[in-house]
Amino acid sequence: MPRKSGVFPQPGSKVELEEGEEFTPRFDADGLIPAIVTDSGTGDVLMFAFMNAEALSATIETREAHFYSRSRGKLWKKGEDSGNVLKVESLRTDCDQDVVWLKVGIGGHGAACHTGRMTCFYREVRFDGPDGAGASLTEIVLDKAFSPTEVYGGKRD
Amino acid sequence: MPRKSGVFPQPGSKVELEEGEEFTPRFDADGLIPAIVTDSGTGDVLMFAFMNAEALSATIETREAHFYSRSRGKLWKKGEDSGNVLKVESLRTDCDQDVVWLKVGIGGHGAACHTGRMTCFYREVRFDGPDGAGASLTEIVLDKAFSPTEVYGGKRD
Repeated sequence: MPRKSGVFPQPGSKVELEEGEEFTPRFDADGLIPAIVTDSGTGDVLMFAFMNAEALSATIETREAHFYSRSRGKLWKKGEDSGNVLKVESLRTDCDQDVVWLKVGIGGHGAACHTGRMTCFYREVRFDGPDGAGASLTEIVLDKAFSPTEVYGGKRD
Repeated sequence: MPRKSGVFPQPGSKVELEEGEEFTPRFDADGLIPAIVTDSGTGDVLMFAFMNAEALSATIETREAHFYSRSRGKLWKKGEDSGNVLKVESLRTDCDQDVVWLKVGIGGHGAACHTGRMTCFYREVRFDGPDGAGASLTEIVLDKAFSPTEVYGGKRD
């Protein structure tokens, strides 16, 4: 079971959360906090994942992004298999401290997505129907920086 | 209770999710999907919230961002109180279609945060301790574009 706040101080009042100078991240009922990762150069969103307190603490300690893998139920250092480590250049939190935003530089092959693309967000939704029904996807990031099959047998990273 | 997939087709296999051309968003057990919002001009992350199928469908239909308010338990059109509507310029999804990324232009006061700031991510985490314990926050977005108290009595928007 994930730790709820770990080394971090307990969150305070709404005013303290919004205007305070203490970092008191708010983890959800499962002990997780959403983490948005953008490329410090291009500004593109690279990936999105969840952290538990251990992952957030490890990220701050090492300046390399760690997450909590819900499917594997354990701490996950991004790039541990592929070499595509995410080097954290800055870390922000939002108004109520229940989300974090990391600006990173990508190591290894320069790709954040396990499919080999630079970003996980390689497809745009085309607004074909009035309400999203039947909407199609168009690939806008075409290049693959590496072959997942060759690098780690297609294993998720 | 939120609809799980609403008007959207049911998700297919891993290969269909990752390489297919059909938008089949994956909502979690609560019927929600994370939504990252960035500014189409600056690239900054503006806010983060969850959508249910109804909110995602309304967003596609109107090209204005809608979310699901977990605290209020209902559909929430961003800017309905403040006028700070988010006009969607593009919508992407990630490799396994369980996150969406909206690039937007901000209407009204040009601020996405209910505190009056342009972005909800107005504070950076300073790495003071080795593992995040005692980390402090530094405000890096200083300007407030509007006074929440004057605009909507401080009510969350």
